[in-house]
Amino acid sequence: MGEELNKWFKVAIEASRRYGGKIMVLPKVPVRNLQDFSIWYTPGVAAVSKEINADVDKSFDYTWRWNAIAILTDGSRVLGLGNVGPEAAMPVMEGKALLFKYLGGVDAVPLPVRAKTQDDIVNIGKAIEPAFGGINLEDTESPKCFYVLEKLREELKIAVWHDDQQGTAGAILAGLINAFKVVGKRIEDSTIVFIGAGASNIAAARILIKYGVKPGNVILVDSKGILHPEREDMDKLMLTNPWKYDLAIKTNAERRKGGIKEALVGADAVVAASVQGPGVIKKEWVKSMNKDSIVFALANPIPEIWPWEAKEAGAKVVATGRSDFPNQVNNSLVFPGVFRGALDARVRTITDEMIIAAAQEIANFVGDKLSADKILPTMEEWDFYSRVAAAVAVKAVEQGIARKSLSWKEEYERAKEIIAASRLIIETLFGKGLIKDLLSDLT
Amino acid sequence: MGEELNKWFKVAIEASRRYGGKIMVLPKVPVRNLQDFSIWYTPGVAAVSKEINADVDKSFDYTWRWNAIAILTDGSRVLGLGNVGPEAAMPVMEGKALLFKYLGGVDAVPLPVRAKTQDDIVNIGKAIEPAFGGINLEDTESPKCFYVLEKLREELKIAVWHDDQQGTAGAILAGLINAFKVVGKRIEDSTIVFIGAGASNIAAARILIKYGVKPGNVILVDSKGILHPEREDMDKLMLTNPWKYDLAIKTNAERRKGGIKEALVGADAVVAASVQGPGVIKKEWVKSMNKDSIVFALANPIPEIWPWEAKEAGAKVVATGRSDFPNQVNNSLVFPGVFRGALDARVRTITDEMIIAAAQEIANFVGDKLSADKILPTMEEWDFYSRVAAAVAVKAVEQGIARKSLSWKEEYERAKEIIAASRLIIETLFGKGLIKDLLSDLT
Repeated sequence: MGEELNKWFKVAIEASRRYGGKIMVLPKVPVRNLQDFSIWYTPGVAAVSKEINADVDKSFDYTWRWNAIAILTDGSRVLGLGNVGPEAAMPVMEGKALLFKYLGGVDAVPLPVRAKTQDDIVNIGKAIEPAFGGINLEDTESPKCFYVLEKLREELKIAVWHDDQQGTAGAILAGLINAFKVVGKRIEDSTIVFIGAGASNIAAARILIKYGVKPGNVILVDSKGILHPEREDMDKLMLTNPWKYDLAIKTNAERRKGGIKEALVGADAVVAASVQGPGVIKKEWVKSMNKDSIVFALANPIPEIWPWEAKEAGAKVVATGRSDFPNQVNNSLVFPGVFRGALDARVRTITDEMIIAAAQEIANFVGDKLSADKILPTMEEWDFYSRVAAAVAVKAVEQGIARKSLSWKEEYERAKEIIAASRLIIETLFGKGLIKDLLSDLT
Repeated sequence: MGEELNKWFKVAIEASRRYGGKIMVLPKVPVRNLQDFSIWYTPGVAAVSKEINADVDKSFDYTWRWNAIAILTDGSRVLGLGNVGPEAAMPVMEGKALLFKYLGGVDAVPLPVRAKTQDDIVNIGKAIEPAFGGINLEDTESPKCFYVLEKLREELKIAVWHDDQQGTAGAILAGLINAFKVVGKRIEDSTIVFIGAGASNIAAARILIKYGVKPGNVILVDSKGILHPEREDMDKLMLTNPWKYDLAIKTNAERRKGGIKEALVGADAVVAASVQGPGVIKKEWVKSMNKDSIVFALANPIPEIWPWEAKEAGAKVVATGRSDFPNQVNNSLVFPGVFRGALDARVRTITDEMIIAAAQEIANFVGDKLSADKILPTMEEWDFYSRVAAAVAVKAVEQGIARKSLSWKEEYERAKEIIAASRLIIETLFGKGLIKDLLSDLT
């Protein structure tokens, strides 16, 4: 594991140096000669600006705004590295932009910013709204990220999304929907334990409750133990993290106390997004769960419990965050399709219902292949992104938050075409040597 | 003229609609398969972030920052349209991004923002510094633009540029250098009148004085007449526009008063960047200038005086802002090369000396072709952009503001390669039909 990781580290540094980063800006219009700048620049462009000035929504018709998003971060929680700052966040944001284009056909601009307070980030988000059809918040620490997302969702009339919250929550929900199918239990009546109460688990708990899980059947465990209304830090939580406080009040109907061990007794599923394992979740604790238990151990790169240990302890479905084990729970399954659909419907916001629709579509896509070791699609099966886009767009139209009306079939076909066109351009540039192969001696 | 303009307006609107804007984000690295995301995203990318966290300047080695700039505007003075707002500014910013790529090989991100005050713009500039190697301010009203540029130049350690100030000033200086060669006068001893005291003429006067023109030999005329220290609005100017105030104190040694007519008597050159003509400058006023006078009438699309009228009145060299007359004074001659050189030298600022170096290089490029009707290169002669880049980079190194040391030849060859590669990609995408031709029935 360590050796494998070190290999990727070395290759990534050398490859980033050789290419000088990962993305570029290119025209998507012909420049046949300098005369064409009379269309794309002065004098012609003045008329386009005038039209938009008369009707601001026309910016979605006449500019790249319909397909452009910002990947906004303050660099305060980058991967497992913590607060490395905006400059050091850029390689991750560029990578994300690559994924956005490759998987979703979205033009994503990395925007790591210097921001002291959470309101600084909100103000930047508000300032850049006119330039984009969406904002993807990324790698911003909790609880700051809850505040920023909430404020921007309130104030902006474009798609706003925090991938570490909604993206991960969507992937967890999709995985759980299918995991519960495999074990033959009703998710609505089950007890679900969350280990870790950061961005993703707080969001996942909220989305699961919206999906139909009884709040009282949810138990959250953070570094101080099980959340319950009598915990001594509740007053402090109310001030510093009202989102966690709110869940501490709503969840854990039986007022269970203690740690992970106590939380897991009789639980049907556990979703851990906490700290590097193994050993964070012990085998004997999994044994204490209900029959045919579900274990999502999502810490990267080392899950809270190794999959084989969980299975030996009686878990029927095990998922991790890793691509080299079965059942990878990965927000890359969610955000490309969600943004594709949200952008194509020109949405004014992204609702929880849209996230649920995306999760259901992802879960359904597995279809006949469903088994304990196949609860989720992989990025290779990329047709599902267009389906997710369609589900999201249709839900937005239904909820009255879309600027543009699209049917499932219309959006499915549109999304498929846009994503395929992106890949074709990328492949052609590589095929023609316009993107050089400077990797072959590295990997 | 009107009919021709209307044609471009119609084509621009329809073309913008068909293409949905003008630019896109693409990978510049291979994505051979999903495995490659282990290099470009997790797990590999973490090591790249760590390296930058340890040494922030490595962001210029490992990310696209070395070649990425923001085109920042509040949309308060877009072309001749005035304050149309950020959404309506986008088509112009996208067009500018196109020019940046096509002429300079620069990755430019349009960033029209919602900003109430000049400090809002400054704060956004400061916040986004970590993401870019430069910021190109655009279409922001005067005197706000002077304040924003001054503050950002003070506070940021990357290339900051306001094209309507420095770009136009550089083009005017390049043109004047050669115009004075044509008429055989020394620019240092000549009287130069500026009509209009907005962003470009205020900057041009400053740069010309830095170049060697005696401040006392400069006369500025604004909408209220000639600037001089006894004008009754001086107290107000000191507060509202200290940049104009400063020039009112320094210039016009003979304390001339009156309007354009009075200013032009005995002048060697006039640079007008004021309001649509014709008739703003009268023939008889040009007749009152010194023998072999120089007339730059830069209002677009209708110059302050028609070129033939100026010539009939005795002007030897006439320049306008238009591409269909000889001697187009156009900031597109300046910014692509300046940014190419500034980015390649990884500069901490752009100095007036770098602008002067660029102007001299542009003027020199005309060489043997120099004549009254050929004082400037055109965008077609694109080899000069690499020369401008080299001149700018070398000056930055000389002034100790470059992070990277480059010789003239090194930068000339590097710039040439980068610009040629950009054009090749654009041409190939069009040639292969990956950028479709949706223009042929329009033009």
